[in-house]
Amino acid sequence: MEKLKIGIIGAGRIGQVHAKSITYHIPQAEIAAISDIYVDGAKKVAQDLGIPAYYEDYHNVLNDPKINAVLICSSTDTHADIACKAALAGKHIFCEKPVDLTVAKIKKVIEAVDKAGVKLQIGFNRRYDHNFAQIKRLENKGEIGNLQTIKITSRDPEPPSIEYVKVSGGIFLDMTVHDFDMARFIGAEVEEVYANAAVMVDPEIGKAGDADTALISLKFKNGAIGVIDNCRKASYGYDQRLEVFGSKAQASAANDTPTNVSVIGENGNISDKPLYFFLERYMQSFTDEMAEFVDCVLNDKQIKTTVYDGLEALRLGLAAKKSVAEHRPVKLSEIEG
Amino acid sequence: MEKLKIGIIGAGRIGQVHAKSITYHIPQAEIAAISDIYVDGAKKVAQDLGIPAYYEDYHNVLNDPKINAVLICSSTDTHADIACKAALAGKHIFCEKPVDLTVAKIKKVIEAVDKAGVKLQIGFNRRYDHNFAQIKRLENKGEIGNLQTIKITSRDPEPPSIEYVKVSGGIFLDMTVHDFDMARFIGAEVEEVYANAAVMVDPEIGKAGDADTALISLKFKNGAIGVIDNCRKASYGYDQRLEVFGSKAQASAANDTPTNVSVIGENGNISDKPLYFFLERYMQSFTDEMAEFVDCVLNDKQIKTTVYDGLEALRLGLAAKKSVAEHRPVKLSEIEG
Amino acid sequence: MEKLKIGIIGAGRIGQVHAKSITYHIPQAEIAAISDIYVDGAKKVAQDLGIPAYYEDYHNVLNDPKINAVLICSSTDTHADIACKAALAGKHIFCEKPVDLTVAKIKKVIEAVDKAGVKLQIGFNRRYDHNFAQIKRLENKGEIGNLQTIKITSRDPEPPSIEYVKVSGGIFLDMTVHDFDMARFIGAEVEEVYANAAVMVDPEIGKAGDADTALISLKFKNGAIGVIDNCRKASYGYDQRLEVFGSKAQASAANDTPTNVSVIGENGNISDKPLYFFLERYMQSFTDEMAEFVDCVLNDKQIKTTVYDGLEALRLGLAAKKSVAEHRPVKLSEIEG
Amino acid sequence: MEKLKIGIIGAGRIGQVHAKSITYHIPQAEIAAISDIYVDGAKKVAQDLGIPAYYEDYHNVLNDPKINAVLICSSTDTHADIACKAALAGKHIFCEKPVDLTVAKIKKVIEAVDKAGVKLQIGFNRRYDHNFAQIKRLENKGEIGNLQTIKITSRDPEPPSIEYVKVSGGIFLDMTVHDFDMARFIGAEVEEVYANAAVMVDPEIGKAGDADTALISLKFKNGAIGVIDNCRKASYGYDQRLEVFGSKAQASAANDTPTNVSVIGENGNISDKPLYFFLERYMQSFTDEMAEFVDCVLNDKQIKTTVYDGLEALRLGLAAKKSVAEHRPVKLSEIEG
Repeated sequence: MEKLKIGIIGAGRIGQVHAKSITYHIPQAEIAAISDIYVDGAKKVAQDLGIPAYYEDYHNVLNDPKINAVLICSSTDTHADIACKAALAGKHIFCEKPVDLTVAKIKKVIEAVDKAGVKLQIGFNRRYDHNFAQIKRLENKGEIGNLQTIKITSRDPEPPSIEYVKVSGGIFLDMTVHDFDMARFIGAEVEEVYANAAVMVDPEIGKAGDADTALISLKFKNGAIGVIDNCRKASYGYDQRLEVFGSKAQASAANDTPTNVSVIGENGNISDKPLYFFLERYMQSFTDEMAEFVDCVLNDKQIKTTVYDGLEALRLGLAAKKSVAEHRPVKLSEIEG
Repeated sequence: MEKLKIGIIGAGRIGQVHAKSITYHIPQAEIAAISDIYVDGAKKVAQDLGIPAYYEDYHNVLNDPKINAVLICSSTDTHADIACKAALAGKHIFCEKPVDLTVAKIKKVIEAVDKAGVKLQIGFNRRYDHNFAQIKRLENKGEIGNLQTIKITSRDPEPPSIEYVKVSGGIFLDMTVHDFDMARFIGAEVEEVYANAAVMVDPEIGKAGDADTALISLKFKNGAIGVIDNCRKASYGYDQRLEVFGSKAQASAANDTPTNVSVIGENGNISDKPLYFFLERYMQSFTDEMAEFVDCVLNDKQIKTTVYDGLEALRLGLAAKKSVAEHRPVKLSEIEG
Repeated sequence: MEKLKIGIIGAGRIGQVHAKSITYHIPQAEIAAISDIYVDGAKKVAQDLGIPAYYEDYHNVLNDPKINAVLICSSTDTHADIACKAALAGKHIFCEKPVDLTVAKIKKVIEAVDKAGVKLQIGFNRRYDHNFAQIKRLENKGEIGNLQTIKITSRDPEPPSIEYVKVSGGIFLDMTVHDFDMARFIGAEVEEVYANAAVMVDPEIGKAGDADTALISLKFKNGAIGVIDNCRKASYGYDQRLEVFGSKAQASAANDTPTNVSVIGENGNISDKPLYFFLERYMQSFTDEMAEFVDCVLNDKQIKTTVYDGLEALRLGLAAKKSVAEHRPVKLSEIEG
Repeated sequence: MEKLKIGIIGAGRIGQVHAKSITYHIPQAEIAAISDIYVDGAKKVAQDLGIPAYYEDYHNVLNDPKINAVLICSSTDTHADIACKAALAGKHIFCEKPVDLTVAKIKKVIEAVDKAGVKLQIGFNRRYDHNFAQIKRLENKGEIGNLQTIKITSRDPEPPSIEYVKVSGGIFLDMTVHDFDMARFIGAEVEEVYANAAVMVDPEIGKAGDADTALISLKFKNGAIGVIDNCRKASYGYDQRLEVFGSKAQASAANDTPTNVSVIGENGNISDKPLYFFLERYMQSFTDEMAEFVDCVLNDKQIKTTVYDGLEALRLGLAAKKSVAEHRPVKLSEIEG
């Protein structure tokens, strides 16, 4: 079987993560080219990893007939346009989340991808996390029983810069969007959302029109209920937990820690805080999502994490925003889809 | 110092718990009499514990001038009336929760108690649980920092009988009321409630007009947010957990278990389920609340768990009911208080 | 069924523990009398618990025909003599450990008890601890498989006084004796002992001819191997753990803690130290051993924790002393038995 | 700074582990050549990882003047000879453990290395494990206080083949050797060893003259005591734990697990078994030891895990064998060194 030839568009942090995963851990694929509007970044990655071509202009990647698939790792506002062009060029697509902050543009991507008959996988990497994937497996094996309640905790170690906050689309589209996807992945389709938002970490975030602390109640279509709690800052690091309560059992995923060492002395029994940052916690999941993408393209399998998942997570974020704005529960059907 | 002379009204399960606590563990008090409309029950407890008098009619307890304080452990619908009469008789009062299912009758109790100048402690025993009390101590020492989010999980091992469900006042007044009190004890005063309710355990509960699964979002007056999740049945027993997230730390109380033994074999690492029933989990807390009551009366200290706490927990339950009925967030100020 | 009438000889700490257990938790028995050479101590306990008679001279207890059973809770050097006299008086006996520090005197007790046909239970209370008893149950159910290795950790929070050390018989007879019994209870009969002893906590203990830190290797008759590690002082409290490794599984008992609360902040995840003192850790086990004794006597059942168990634990302690003295492994058969 | 040029001798399992670590994770080094007596194995690794040269005869590696350092990953019986020749050729050396099963040959290696002035690091990778290295850091920071007791548990998931057992040197030289090194790394220099050995897993291992279960008592020169327990088979996987008990605190390293998920249902609270195999558990440690080796060579730093450590671990293994053979404690000074 020939290797999948991949082009990477965007050589920033997440582009580099994927470039290394492919180079070091996915022998079924190879990177044929990388582009970045900051071309020196693309050049450095190309040299470090032995990638044969690098460009400033991503059209060079799209126009390379050897390339079968592209990874869209550029800034969010460019995702939809590049995805449409990539589909037109017949490339399979791995697109970082969010696809876009508007329903309309995501629908254009869906249209383009459907028309071109190419595959598109969304970078909801947390679905591939060892803990959360294990809970999914337990569910699929029937060990949880009927889902009754799902609880998701997601807290960042530090808030982003105020500049970023201003263009982020707000906490629900920028941060909760991952948890909305997890609620759909582990739980079910959502019928209704009710969101509380507060400013408890940094008043500047409030001045920028956003919140830093939130709690979102969910009603699922199958009757189950759920809750997501978010905060932009936890003193102890990156807090990523999940609990599923069903008729047969309750499954929960605790945080990962740097070591399993504990020290018992006069002041108590002290063990590690959670891993501090998303790159430490989720590194393996980035490799695993990419391996699945490569496998789906090479072996013509159905993509599991689709652009539709990206659309639904966005709609849930928009519903949460509307819920806060109008101070009432909002049905997902109220949001254009 | 002379011993506190106590009369117990109601010799059922909880009356017996208090009778044993006092007899075996609280040397500062002694039980002078016990009454129950089922007089054989009162007689048996009196004989087993060496209580000198037992009655069918609780007025005999109220009319005994040697008795300084009464415990009201009769059925809920009698609490308020007995409390008013006990106040009039100049007895200090320990009253099981709920005081009543209506605001009006609780206010009559407050009036009677205030007029008589007697003390009244409510039996919110979970405040005295070793785990939750430890979190309160940590908060008071400033180790949690500013409260940002509080999460309470409370699930029963088995639903009550349908007969009981029908007269219980519903899940919010019967079950969540404890969690509302915990939210106020560990958290802060509540401004607004939004409740989701579902029937996932037993359709008969739904037919009786109640829910068996619920999730309640809370907005506190200090800006913090909270969530309570309840279920009438957990396959693994009695699930009683609490998490407080503050600016300095997150504190959480895990369940108590029968042993600390774990067995690692081919099928994984197996440790104990939570203690199955509230009498096992909370036994020490019943003794501790009673010791505090005795101490407050004997030494004329201020009661910490007051009838006002009973009133507020009821109002929160009524707000949750209204939230479900009207499908919207409900401010506590909308509920008569 | 009539209640068992018990006489208690010795009203010190452990005598009081048993007196309270019987009074409060064992309705099948009642205490008829208590004696202590410090008669005011006996008087106080009698008054507090409503015991009808107290004496300075224990012979009054032995001579009381109403009394069916005696608890020997006096100082160690008096245990054997009193036990022999109690047997002669036809009383069933619960005797605190150690029965004696010599094999010869224990054998006299065995002879006296056998001749009189009375029951004698030894106070190896740890067999009744909820954690260790659970491991025994798992073994009996076959869940551990063939025993291969057993590991016992036993560390005290503080060393005893030097005065006590001097009369204690040394760490192996005073402290390890409990662990030797546990090794036989959970493990099997021991064939050989090799002991290392060190002075690492307090040089005064060394000057008194004793050690404060020890590690004892065990060879069991069934081929399994084991290890006990002891220390007279652990900065974090009372450390009582057990691990059993078998062909099917490994079971381990962790320490009990005051609460199940953990706090995660900048400095890590802090949970409780173990319970600090043996009375906290083992309180329930004292009640449970007494309940078993009462049941065995009342219902003529076979005693499970016998004077033979006391003898074997002593012989193991003597073997460990000999091992250190002669710096070699010592077979249990080398010790008079 | 120029990259370190490395030649790898031996392309089997551990040679491949190191080859991947260097290629993917250590940019300061590159592999110039690889050899294996099974040349197709060397060829495959070379092709997969882009190594420019591969050989059947390791002398080609030693004779390549571009190569600065060699990794000796061939079979144990060839380690010492190749190490001597590599030293003569002026190559720095990373040598897999054990260097040899005899003291005499290790001393020849020490002589050769000293004479040539090259560095030699031994592959005691467990020193670089995240858990054990963390305990070392805590010790170095003084958080444990004076070392009093060290306990090491090391159990394999499955015994090796009988063919391997016969040439392995026995459990003490093949398996415990890692734990002896850990005892010296975390603990101190050892003065005396007493070993118990048993056959409890497979009688064939006994027939081959070896044991499959062992418990080794250690006396350290600083007065502390220790114990190692080993088994060739644990039903639940690879059990690698460590406990250090000091005057200030006790630190312990629990096993690593595939996930942090737990499931609570009717049958208890089930979490993961340990990682099953040494490649999963210790993968990161292989990379970290190699990174240290590269750093020491490139920057002329002192090697931390030396051939002397290999010698001492071997001597401890030989002392344990002698202890079992002569059924007595054996001083390390009795073993040629």
